[in-house]
Amino acid sequence: MIVDLERNGKKPLYLQLKEKIGAMIAERLMLPGSRLPATRDLALSLGVSRNTVVQAYQELEAEGLINSRVGRGAFVTLYPLVEISTPAAKQESCMSYEGLFSAGWSRANADLVSVFEQLAQPPSKSLYIDMASDQPNSGLLPVAAFGECLKSAVRRYGRSLFTTGSPCGFKPLLEYLPTLLARRNVMCRPENLMIVSGVQQALNLIGRLFIDPGDTVLLQHFTYPGALGMFRSFQSTCIGIPTDHEGLCIDVLERILRHRRPKLLYIVPTFHNPTGTTLPAERRRRLVELAREHAFLVVEDDYAHDLAFDGREAYPLKSWDTVGGIIHLGSFSESLFPGIRLSWIVASKPIIERLALLKQSYDLYTNRIIQGALLEYCRKGCYDRELKRKRQVYARRCDSLFRAMEYHFPDAVTWRKPKGGLFQWVDIPESLDAFALLLRTRERGVVFTPDRMFAVEEWSRGGFRLGFTSPEEDQIPEGVKIIGETLKDILATVA
Amino acid sequence: MIVDLERNGKKPLYLQLKEKIGAMIAERLMLPGSRLPATRDLALSLGVSRNTVVQAYQELEAEGLINSRVGRGAFVTLYPLVEISTPAAKQESCMSYEGLFSAGWSRANADLVSVFEQLAQPPSKSLYIDMASDQPNSGLLPVAAFGECLKSAVRRYGRSLFTTGSPCGFKPLLEYLPTLLARRNVMCRPENLMIVSGVQQALNLIGRLFIDPGDTVLLQHFTYPGALGMFRSFQSTCIGIPTDHEGLCIDVLERILRHRRPKLLYIVPTFHNPTGTTLPAERRRRLVELAREHAFLVVEDDYAHDLAFDGREAYPLKSWDTVGGIIHLGSFSESLFPGIRLSWIVASKPIIERLALLKQSYDLYTNRIIQGALLEYCRKGCYDRELKRKRQVYARRCDSLFRAMEYHFPDAVTWRKPKGGLFQWVDIPESLDAFALLLRTRERGVVFTPDRMFAVEEWSRGGFRLGFTSPEEDQIPEGVKIIGETLKDILATVA
Repeated sequence: MIVDLERNGKKPLYLQLKEKIGAMIAERLMLPGSRLPATRDLALSLGVSRNTVVQAYQELEAEGLINSRVGRGAFVTLYPLVEISTPAAKQESCMSYEGLFSAGWSRANADLVSVFEQLAQPPSKSLYIDMASDQPNSGLLPVAAFGECLKSAVRRYGRSLFTTGSPCGFKPLLEYLPTLLARRNVMCRPENLMIVSGVQQALNLIGRLFIDPGDTVLLQHFTYPGALGMFRSFQSTCIGIPTDHEGLCIDVLERILRHRRPKLLYIVPTFHNPTGTTLPAERRRRLVELAREHAFLVVEDDYAHDLAFDGREAYPLKSWDTVGGIIHLGSFSESLFPGIRLSWIVASKPIIERLALLKQSYDLYTNRIIQGALLEYCRKGCYDRELKRKRQVYARRCDSLFRAMEYHFPDAVTWRKPKGGLFQWVDIPESLDAFALLLRTRERGVVFTPDRMFAVEEWSRGGFRLGFTSPEEDQIPEGVKIIGETLKDILATVA
Repeated sequence: MIVDLERNGKKPLYLQLKEKIGAMIAERLMLPGSRLPATRDLALSLGVSRNTVVQAYQELEAEGLINSRVGRGAFVTLYPLVEISTPAAKQESCMSYEGLFSAGWSRANADLVSVFEQLAQPPSKSLYIDMASDQPNSGLLPVAAFGECLKSAVRRYGRSLFTTGSPCGFKPLLEYLPTLLARRNVMCRPENLMIVSGVQQALNLIGRLFIDPGDTVLLQHFTYPGALGMFRSFQSTCIGIPTDHEGLCIDVLERILRHRRPKLLYIVPTFHNPTGTTLPAERRRRLVELAREHAFLVVEDDYAHDLAFDGREAYPLKSWDTVGGIIHLGSFSESLFPGIRLSWIVASKPIIERLALLKQSYDLYTNRIIQGALLEYCRKGCYDRELKRKRQVYARRCDSLFRAMEYHFPDAVTWRKPKGGLFQWVDIPESLDAFALLLRTRERGVVFTPDRMFAVEEWSRGGFRLGFTSPEEDQIPEGVKIIGETLKDILATVA
């Protein structure tokens, strides 16, 4: 405890000490229930007599701020009788850190900040319809079923969940996953797998393993901001490839490959974030061929693979991989719930081995209790039931969104209904600015995600993303109505 | 599914296909219970008639390898009647990755590998006494109590544990931690805190935020290998400062500071890993002063703070920090169980804010279900009870180790009993090589950790670490006896 006492002041030391501690309690620097230092220790550390501390504590106790219990020490009372003051904007830090932050950090700063802003608090409105998020509505979280699986996992696997383990993941889960992956036509062995704490961690590990400053990374011209921010933080040159209504434009990629040697390409081939497109089989084959010919890696983020409304999924790029050039990422965040923080990487053994070393250096290994619970959840058939439920609910919500858009949106904007996933992309004419639209609808309590959040290139413009998973189901038509009205207002002004 | 068929071969296509799929089942590339592609899809993707696929599936079914269920598709049978062949060392990957790994990765590779080796499998011996580990014995894991808290956390916090959250951690836990920290005399507010997935992650985030290639990082000459490997992976220059029986030698640090401008110093002030020393208060004060004078950061890894045998802890460096130059790390891995993967960072707000951005880029946020369960565990008083138990058990084990060493170890080796923590350091004369000793005791089933695992400098030699938490309690004297006998053998040869 740091207490500055005036040795030559008029006020007795014990009283100074009492007041300083009282102030700390009032500012909640010492919380209700917390233990005060032993009198002897505090006396020693302050260089005062023990009696001074004892007297100060007695005064504090008399005022009801602390409780002494014989043999246990002194504690701040649970309801101290002081007016708890809001801590003023005290200058806690006098040190200048600016010269200390790494250059790598400072360069990447802007990109990371922009992602962070996306999480900023919504406006406090009576009406608030969140179509920006791709998180499931709280009614769609399988709390009870997963809670049961936590319990049965601890019962079944017991101590093995509580001890240290392999950086690659909980072995029984690693042995189970190939069965799940075979359903999507990705054939692998446990040694081709690593469990990580979400797709974002997978991407960061991959970035660290492969990217040197100046390396070229190819992405779709709109892409997942967490991937873009991460690749930029490793100081790579990020190039956005145009994406049409079927996904990545392979012909443009071929032209770029004549001039550039990329180290890797990051793609979301199925229910692309944010445009919702799914790359057709013929483009998938061709992309895998090009990667092999030009010896670059493809990071396939198949985060929403299981969320096809009709349950008929496209085969992942990885299922066409014959040379180990595709790194396949999958996740339980979208199919189950975001808080699970569990995803997987499928890659060839030399890559998995190196990622495992990095994973160790990052955080040793991912929590195994959650891995055990997930395995129980899958084995009991809960995963398949939850998928079925989510597909039905999301299909219904997407339908509802679609009907509302047909009714409320002006002809100047267009869209294609996705076959699965978590959101709907809307194309807007060049004369419209999606961000300006957002600022207007936000005033009326409706938010969505504008093009610039996903933009790799300056020219990446012209649309916005409507999430249909987060709002209450009956809010969807209302949200669309407000956006539609605002669109018409703006178009009337522009025209 | 990739199947190469010989179009002009003698064997009918359906038979080729049947054999290839059969081989995949035998090699467990397709696992029992997994679904085969729909006949139409597979026909399309292979460019054969649907009838070819149907025939192949019929043959496989006749052999008991797969099961067709009308309307549901074909599945590999749960106990396929084939001899499961161990997958040969097939060249799964033909791609050369060497040019693709980043330079940063390649330079750091050796250090990371050396940490990894530590986790290598123990010899399969009838007798196996693990004094290398600092993990608790499986009997010391609070499985039942924490299992209960998982359940009650899901009940109490429900959906809020399953959704996305702040990168800094689960808010109720962030609000609770200052109370716990006040007990160790670290006064902070929730905004000075971040919950991370273990101390290793805290260190990696800090390394990324502050370290540029070429920066100087000071460490103790023996240190936690996970920290050393991580700082080196950011291409810093790591300098080891001598550590005597009271911890870091402040006078040597002062001399170094005349010539060097370090960016940060990493220290384990209490129950130092591996030497078990605890820095006295006077050296702590002086270190905090030096950091302020020379404007470098101190990363204080207080991982075992709560494990003082007598419950009387030293005040952390952070409690003397007046300018925000100390970053304080604490952990539940040692006091509770390693699999919990929860630690915290206390730092000034400008640092926490930046670490939060990085944490987002690393893995968004740490699993909140576990955070909720930990909070329940603390609030119910389980944490204090568990600490009390661990302190008693570890003190008893350390006593047992101490008595056995006094009885079995030759005079040439010396040690000081630690006042807490998880291990005992043993100093050995220069003529002895701890690693050679390990190779000998390993033959007899006893392992420990030799000096070189912790060495920052070439001259960091002369001892080994005996963990007393992992073996069965009655194995400790036996393990010490075997090490003592081997020591005497070697000394007899050397003399």
